[in-house]
Amino acid sequence: MGRFAVGIDIGRTNIRAGLVNDKGEVLRSIKERTDAAGGFLRVEEQVAAAFGRMAQGREVAGAGVGIAGQCDAVRGVVRCGPNLFWPDVPFRDRLADALGVPVTLRNDVVMATVGEWRHGAGLGCNDVVALFVGTGIGGGAIVNGRLLEGRSGCGGHFGHVSVQLDGPLCGCGRPGCVEAYASGCGLAARALNDEGLSSSSLSSAAKLDGAAVARAVAEGDELAIRLRDDAAAALTSALASIINCLEPEMAILGGAVMDGLPGLYERCAAEAVEKCLPSHRDHLAVTRSVLGDMAGVIGSASMALEPL
Amino acid sequence: MGRFAVGIDIGRTNIRAGLVNDKGEVLRSIKERTDAAGGFLRVEEQVAAAFGRMAQGREVAGAGVGIAGQCDAVRGVVRCGPNLFWPDVPFRDRLADALGVPVTLRNDVVMATVGEWRHGAGLGCNDVVALFVGTGIGGGAIVNGRLLEGRSGCGGHFGHVSVQLDGPLCGCGRPGCVEAYASGCGLAARALNDEGLSSSSLSSAAKLDGAAVARAVAEGDELAIRLRDDAAAALTSALASIINCLEPEMAILGGAVMDGLPGLYERCAAEAVEKCLPSHRDHLAVTRSVLGDMAGVIGSASMALEPL
Repeated sequence: MGRFAVGIDIGRTNIRAGLVNDKGEVLRSIKERTDAAGGFLRVEEQVAAAFGRMAQGREVAGAGVGIAGQCDAVRGVVRCGPNLFWPDVPFRDRLADALGVPVTLRNDVVMATVGEWRHGAGLGCNDVVALFVGTGIGGGAIVNGRLLEGRSGCGGHFGHVSVQLDGPLCGCGRPGCVEAYASGCGLAARALNDEGLSSSSLSSAAKLDGAAVARAVAEGDELAIRLRDDAAAALTSALASIINCLEPEMAILGGAVMDGLPGLYERCAAEAVEKCLPSHRDHLAVTRSVLGDMAGVIGSASMALEPL
Repeated sequence: MGRFAVGIDIGRTNIRAGLVNDKGEVLRSIKERTDAAGGFLRVEEQVAAAFGRMAQGREVAGAGVGIAGQCDAVRGVVRCGPNLFWPDVPFRDRLADALGVPVTLRNDVVMATVGEWRHGAGLGCNDVVALFVGTGIGGGAIVNGRLLEGRSGCGGHFGHVSVQLDGPLCGCGRPGCVEAYASGCGLAARALNDEGLSSSSLSSAAKLDGAAVARAVAEGDELAIRLRDDAAAALTSALASIINCLEPEMAILGGAVMDGLPGLYERCAAEAVEKCLPSHRDHLAVTRSVLGDMAGVIGSASMALEPL
């Protein structure tokens, strides 16, 4: 029958939870809107309710929680992030009290990286990087067969590799981060600041985000195609730099923008390999993520069942 | 009395060798010009002779060899590099036969990183990055208390982090690598291609290299100061990106250009901390390397005594 854990993925938009076994199989799952405006007390309630429904009738070894923010894994707090962060709240320990099981807390895409590594595209590899391009850009890495955590569990912030000294300003305060070019937020900000916006179909988009840019690219919109090309150049450069630093055997690319923007994945996969050092190129495979929306849930549960 | 190994650092210019104990103490050492033009047979002879002199009268556990080139640690070959590479020669195994002891082969600055970590500036740390800025730029990292090796032992090529999509072309074929801005070779190439060269004291340098640029900066030369400022900006950006990826507790900066170019270290140390993510900043110390020219010898011997 195997052992079970509950994986919980707290995104900016949705909370997903799942009951997962030690083979990475999802036995049941749930999804609801994240009530970020309600603060951590409300998010705690949502997590507790989701955990209760997932764990019902099962003996559960623990819960893994991935959240869209920078986590201090040592202290168990969410230090900063776009809208879900409570740097002074001992979020992990409060959740453990509320749920009655041990809780493992990490960044959401770090959890997704663990999911892809143990049960997805990176199965059997010792050295992996994963890059997820969505509303923001994040990632994770496996080095020597272990999760790259860094000093406080915050390693793998690949969205904040700068590719241009005088590039567009990123939310982190630095110019030219790949997140400022290629994330949903970055694409929208660049479109809004572009002189060509008035003659682009993007000017009439109900909501200007990565999905709107993807639709406009498919329709042949000039501005959208230029933004896509810039995003591809930035992602390719960042990815080649990351590969030169870590020499992985596998680079996994995923996320809504990576999957949705026409031609983006193909260009990144081809050009990142061309541009990295020859010694790194020979051993490298680039592939799409295979667990999709459930990578975070599966990785979170896996971290709860078997910490790294 | 402790255990002993011989560390050998094969640089582009000099071969250094030392008899080192398990405390990282150098009991005796030797230095001579690298005869790269003589090919691998001649370099093998030099290494064997140096080893013989260092090992004389001692029982030696093994030899560690660091070389200025990209090493495949699995196959024990030097894949590529500026002037010392023999991709089809089983260099490690040939040396082991010639020396009669086990040989560990890695890139020279990877060995220097191990030296600084075990016996220098990074002592006691679990997560370290080291960046050495000399004729070229290289580095190494300790992740989770282990050397970051990558798939074939080629990880840590921090010189090939690109900081500018349309930057100067690097020897690796990519534009904007930090090596193309801040290494001795990069500084010289940029000076030669600069319109301001004719009115700079650099135009009359006997040899245009990092040391010449350092002297010109000290004399107030306008072009040299601009090149130094560009190098600082590029190094700072690359370093902040590397820190965001790896979240080290310690960043060690060394090498002849880093040590010799007036003001470079100070700017890199201050600005890299300012520019990395807040969550990474708090835990981070930046420091100079402390083992200097002997870091590679000490690290090589240490890898021979206790492989990672």
